[in-house]
Amino acid sequence: MTKFSQAQSELTALLGDRLTLADGVRDVHGSDESWQPAVAPEAVAFPETTAEVAEIVKICSARGVPMIPYGIGSAVEGGIVATRGGLCIDLSGMHEIRAIHPEDLDAVVDAGVTHVALNERLEGSQLFFSVDPGAAATIGGMAATRASGSNAFRYGTMRENVLGLEVVLADGRVIHTSRRARKSAAGYDLTRLFVGSEGTLGIITAVTVRLHRVPEALSSAVCPFPDVAAAVKTVIQTIQAGIPLARMELLDEAALQAVNAYSGLDYAPAPTLFLEFQGTEQGVVEQSQRVARIAAEQGGTDFQWATDAAQRNKLWQARHDAYYAIIESRPGSRSVTTDVCVPISRLAECIAETRRDLQECSLPCPMLGHVGDGNFHVLFLVDPNRLEELAEAEHFNSRMVQRALDMEGTCSGEHGIGLGKREFLQQEHGAAWDVMRSIKATLDPQNVMNPGKVFAD
Amino acid sequence: MTKFSQAQSELTALLGDRLTLADGVRDVHGSDESWQPAVAPEAVAFPETTAEVAEIVKICSARGVPMIPYGIGSAVEGGIVATRGGLCIDLSGMHEIRAIHPEDLDAVVDAGVTHVALNERLEGSQLFFSVDPGAAATIGGMAATRASGSNAFRYGTMRENVLGLEVVLADGRVIHTSRRARKSAAGYDLTRLFVGSEGTLGIITAVTVRLHRVPEALSSAVCPFPDVAAAVKTVIQTIQAGIPLARMELLDEAALQAVNAYSGLDYAPAPTLFLEFQGTEQGVVEQSQRVARIAAEQGGTDFQWATDAAQRNKLWQARHDAYYAIIESRPGSRSVTTDVCVPISRLAECIAETRRDLQECSLPCPMLGHVGDGNFHVLFLVDPNRLEELAEAEHFNSRMVQRALDMEGTCSGEHGIGLGKREFLQQEHGAAWDVMRSIKATLDPQNVMNPGKVFAD
Ligand SMILES: Cc1cc2nc3c(=O)[nH]c(=O)nc-3n(C[C@H](O)[C@H](O)[C@H](O)COP(=O)(O)OP(=O)(O)OC[C@H]3O[C@@H](n4cnc5c(N)ncnc54)[C@H](O)[C@@H]3O)c2cc1C
Ligand SMILES: Cc1cc2nc3c(=O)[nH]c(=O)nc-3n(C[C@H](O)[C@H](O)[C@H](O)COP(=O)(O)OP(=O)(O)OC[C@H]3O[C@@H](n4cnc5c(N)ncnc54)[C@H](O)[C@@H]3O)c2cc1C
Repeated sequence: MTKFSQAQSELTALLGDRLTLADGVRDVHGSDESWQPAVAPEAVAFPETTAEVAEIVKICSARGVPMIPYGIGSAVEGGIVATRGGLCIDLSGMHEIRAIHPEDLDAVVDAGVTHVALNERLEGSQLFFSVDPGAAATIGGMAATRASGSNAFRYGTMRENVLGLEVVLADGRVIHTSRRARKSAAGYDLTRLFVGSEGTLGIITAVTVRLHRVPEALSSAVCPFPDVAAAVKTVIQTIQAGIPLARMELLDEAALQAVNAYSGLDYAPAPTLFLEFQGTEQGVVEQSQRVARIAAEQGGTDFQWATDAAQRNKLWQARHDAYYAIIESRPGSRSVTTDVCVPISRLAECIAETRRDLQECSLPCPMLGHVGDGNFHVLFLVDPNRLEELAEAEHFNSRMVQRALDMEGTCSGEHGIGLGKREFLQQEHGAAWDVMRSIKATLDPQNVMNPGKVFAD
Repeated sequence: MTKFSQAQSELTALLGDRLTLADGVRDVHGSDESWQPAVAPEAVAFPETTAEVAEIVKICSARGVPMIPYGIGSAVEGGIVATRGGLCIDLSGMHEIRAIHPEDLDAVVDAGVTHVALNERLEGSQLFFSVDPGAAATIGGMAATRASGSNAFRYGTMRENVLGLEVVLADGRVIHTSRRARKSAAGYDLTRLFVGSEGTLGIITAVTVRLHRVPEALSSAVCPFPDVAAAVKTVIQTIQAGIPLARMELLDEAALQAVNAYSGLDYAPAPTLFLEFQGTEQGVVEQSQRVARIAAEQGGTDFQWATDAAQRNKLWQARHDAYYAIIESRPGSRSVTTDVCVPISRLAECIAETRRDLQECSLPCPMLGHVGDGNFHVLFLVDPNRLEELAEAEHFNSRMVQRALDMEGTCSGEHGIGLGKREFLQQEHGAAWDVMRSIKATLDPQNVMNPGKVFAD
């Protein structure tokens, strides 16, 4: 009898048919968007309130049942794979927008609310929530992975955009990490401790997020460059000139071709920047002119502008779908997705060395990135059944991480550690890694909260 | 024989005359700017390198000697008072600016570098460090208290402006909490855990801070209002109109009179806003006009503008000196300084209720605040020898904190907990407070790192 089966009757008494052992449901919850082999949980729970989550956690903790919080499974490092069995806790049934405070520029949402749903709700209010990963991820999942996206350059990541969390701890206690004041110097910053903890310290049941005002004017553009280096130089010079762009995204030629094919577009097949300008009418015009001049010096002259909302949305939808587009470009493939981030001063060098290195790679490996933050992804498209392909991808991924660490960068700019980057985490942090482990041991002494993730056990 | 005296010979062997037991030096290190009664440490150490700090910590930990890190002692909650005896570790001898990376907009500094020194070094570079408490505090001390200042409204507090820390833990291990990449999703956010930990989790020996670009145009203004409510309404409407001001500071009539007297100025004796506009030339003009219109509706028409650097510096120096000015307004007094911060939507109500309440207070109690953040201070000027005055100040302070908590605010916007707010911290955080304590116990099991601060032991 597994630990879970000892807890099953109590869980059923609590949840009724919102606890399921059906194969189909378990299978869906056994893999995310990564290449990591699927392992289904023993059951899936669909709580609808914080109190229910707390009860579930108490029942599971009493029996030592591993618990895996689940948003929509869009993450890419295997964070929800049930490698230790146990119960998947799917937060999608907690989808209430609890409050919107326009005067305070914040909103309080259940963990299962997606960034898409929150922004739909905000339509017409002149406010928006800025963090925008390409998938329709839950805000709880995004807090858990410290997600970012194309807006992070201007508006920050989940680190900057979470004001407070409601969390169920491993022993079932419910805490609130912070009040709603904009700033506080009262005690340890538990908010930031749980942001990025990937379900290993507790289950996030609600998130207070910052909102931002929709800018007066918005304008987007796509511009091809003769080569990747020219595009990256344009980005760096733009940052250094202090031009306050909102978004600066790079797709290399292969990524752009995949996007063209997937989204039925006909952008020139070249390394391309996707840009967004925000501000006052006049500010946007000024910014655009300055960036156009910088780009022209690098051979980027063919700007395609999108100013009305429909055009802009189309452009950014294409960018957001790039991940899916790239995967479809090799049917049946999964992606080993790299995620390094380096200081801007090292970005050009890091990308150039990476591209030189990848000349020896036999796999398709398009590149794209939030280059304004120094963050870029190479997607190694592997046939998940061919171990030698996985090994090759892992080989080049390791080298990329090593290169980033040598340049004072990080192994993960935004995707998190999950199963895929546990060894890199230790290498990156050294003695600080031991501190992280000791915090994990303190808050989850039985190792039941998403065990085996972030740290190997 | 105290624990310290057992460690003394080893410390002397390590530091020579940079360990001192001289009364004068100990006394200076026994009190900060708060009203908390002074208690001198048993000795003061002046390390010059991280390695020395680590050695000191190892020696003290081995004997269970309390350690109190010390910047310049400008904090206002008694954080450096040696209530448990032990060794004060004065970081002022660590004052090297290790690196400035203009391309990455960051700098790496020793903990003992002051914000003033860093900004002096940056002069002419078009870059500046934004966090600006009124005292010439050390950047290590500012990280330790999660400090902010008048620039926080636009540029954030130390939470947003620290990229990484070098920390000596209670057992002498040295960790680096983060790399220099702008963002990272790799592991728990130890940087934010140590920012605001007030020396209770470890000793910060170096800080990597963000730098910002000096704006193209800058303009400051002072504007009196018929009453405090009118000034606060102006602030709230300005925020809600999305006008990107850099600074919005309020002084009530009593505070303004103290500033006039201290700095030899002749501002109208009325509740007054100190404002700063930053941006492009044109942007600053636009912002100023919009704010002037909002202010006029509230009866604030008498703007005094300061556009050249000398005038602006004079204006902000007067604001920064306000704390000293207020204390001098009652000779021999100390200040019981309140520090609540509430959501902007509650600010007007919070200030109004506070002022009504204070009508019954017999002490001088000028008010000033970083109102753009919802943060304000009442300074109760007490004769430290008269216990009934202290009791009265504490009484009104408690009521202010209670009011702020009832409005989803915090007991400390920027000053921290120290000795003065330990009970409020527990009240504010409930079960989350227990989590903080468990983290303290994990990282400092012997309770030697600034014991008795943040938590009563
Ligand atoms: C097309 C595509 C584009 C993407 N683009 C980006 C991007 O631009 N930037 C970016 O950062 N990421 C991106 N991602 C990755 C992914 O969207 C993010 O990691 C996202 O934050 C995951 O949210 P989720 O709701 O899907 O979480 P899940 O995948 O369900 O879970 C992720 C991790 O968080 C934990 N977790 C989930 N919910 C909770 C909770 N309530 N409490 C505690 N732990 C929880 C899980 O256990 C798991 O470890 C992209 C993914 C895809 C498929
Ligand atoms: C006139 C005046 C105006 C002020 N204005 C503001 C303001 O606008 N905003 C604001 O936030 N504060 C303000 N303060 C308070 C004060 O300046 C801040 O709290 C500042 O951050 C303290 O820095 P310090 O170097 O003086 O630290 P100290 O007072 O020496 O120490 C403060 C705390 O931090 C710990 N500490 C110090 N250095 C380290 C280190 N290297 N590692 C670990 N722990 C350490 C100490 O043990 C203590 O608990 C003001 C104070 C005055 C007197």
